[in-house]
Amino acid sequence: MIILGIDPGSRKTGYGIISKQGNRLIHVDNGAIFTQSAKDFPERLERIFTGLSEIIAQYRPEVVAVEDVFLAKNAQSALKLGQARGAAIVAAVNVGLPVHEYTAMQVKQAVVGTGRAEKTQVQQMIKALLNLPEVAQEDASDALAVAICHAHSAGVSALLKQIR
Amino acid sequence: MIILGIDPGSRKTGYGIISKQGNRLIHVDNGAIFTQSAKDFPERLERIFTGLSEIIAQYRPEVVAVEDVFLAKNAQSALKLGQARGAAIVAAVNVGLPVHEYTAMQVKQAVVGTGRAEKTQVQQMIKALLNLPEVAQEDASDALAVAICHAHSAGVSALLKQIR
Repeated sequence: MIILGIDPGSRKTGYGIISKQGNRLIHVDNGAIFTQSAKDFPERLERIFTGLSEIIAQYRPEVVAVEDVFLAKNAQSALKLGQARGAAIVAAVNVGLPVHEYTAMQVKQAVVGTGRAEKTQVQQMIKALLNLPEVAQEDASDALAVAICHAHSAGVSALLKQIR
Repeated sequence: MIILGIDPGSRKTGYGIISKQGNRLIHVDNGAIFTQSAKDFPERLERIFTGLSEIIAQYRPEVVAVEDVFLAKNAQSALKLGQARGAAIVAAVNVGLPVHEYTAMQVKQAVVGTGRAEKTQVQQMIKALLNLPEVAQEDASDALAVAICHAHSAGVSALLKQIR
């Protein structure tokens, strides 16, 4: 199963692709879409949508995982983040992909084993879990983290189905 | 020139299409996309994106106008509104349409003549300006209002070009 994790942001949108083969997680690709050079905000949204659409076409993930945001500094920054998130999710639902949302706490729990982990701890764990040659860029690392979170949660769901 | 106005919202997204022929504004269509029956939030975004994409394909507007939101009750509602707005704007930029943003004050100024107009005043003016048989649904009316705002502003821009 190929999973695309996304960490949306109006200036940088991280993405991470992993492949779950049985109990093994294999790193496929990661990176970030930078939108700061766009002439206006709608063009930023276009770059996020188009960039992610291309990544989806290239790697053909079966499922998309996005971190659910509860905290934002203020309404204005929440509005910007929301728009980036909307553009990202539409890139997935537009081609029929299911989108799963996980809270930051669930993601940290899945990757580090505690919901209170620091950002650098998450980055180091991602590097170790996926055998990356170096620590991934921050947003890309967060995107890989939510993809891993989905892989774990999907594993548990499959196990529960077998038991029933 | 055919203008599509959009009033995005996570539960209801209003749209209004007008045609500007010289100095005349002609009502083409208006309505709202309701998303409350969607099974989850990503499905709401899909309905907004797909619904507006269909409207764009049907009426082939040359330009899209959206109200710029500055105020939101709190970060959580701003995040929801932002996602709806992102899905709406992506429907336009995805097919190469330019998106113009206007503040609520600019919209009221253009439609009622004062930035401090009440919601019902805006609805009545929209009905009168476009010769609607009845007052349009609230979100659809707001969408028509931002489309009219763009029509006026585009008229002024064209006039300025002639003078230069």
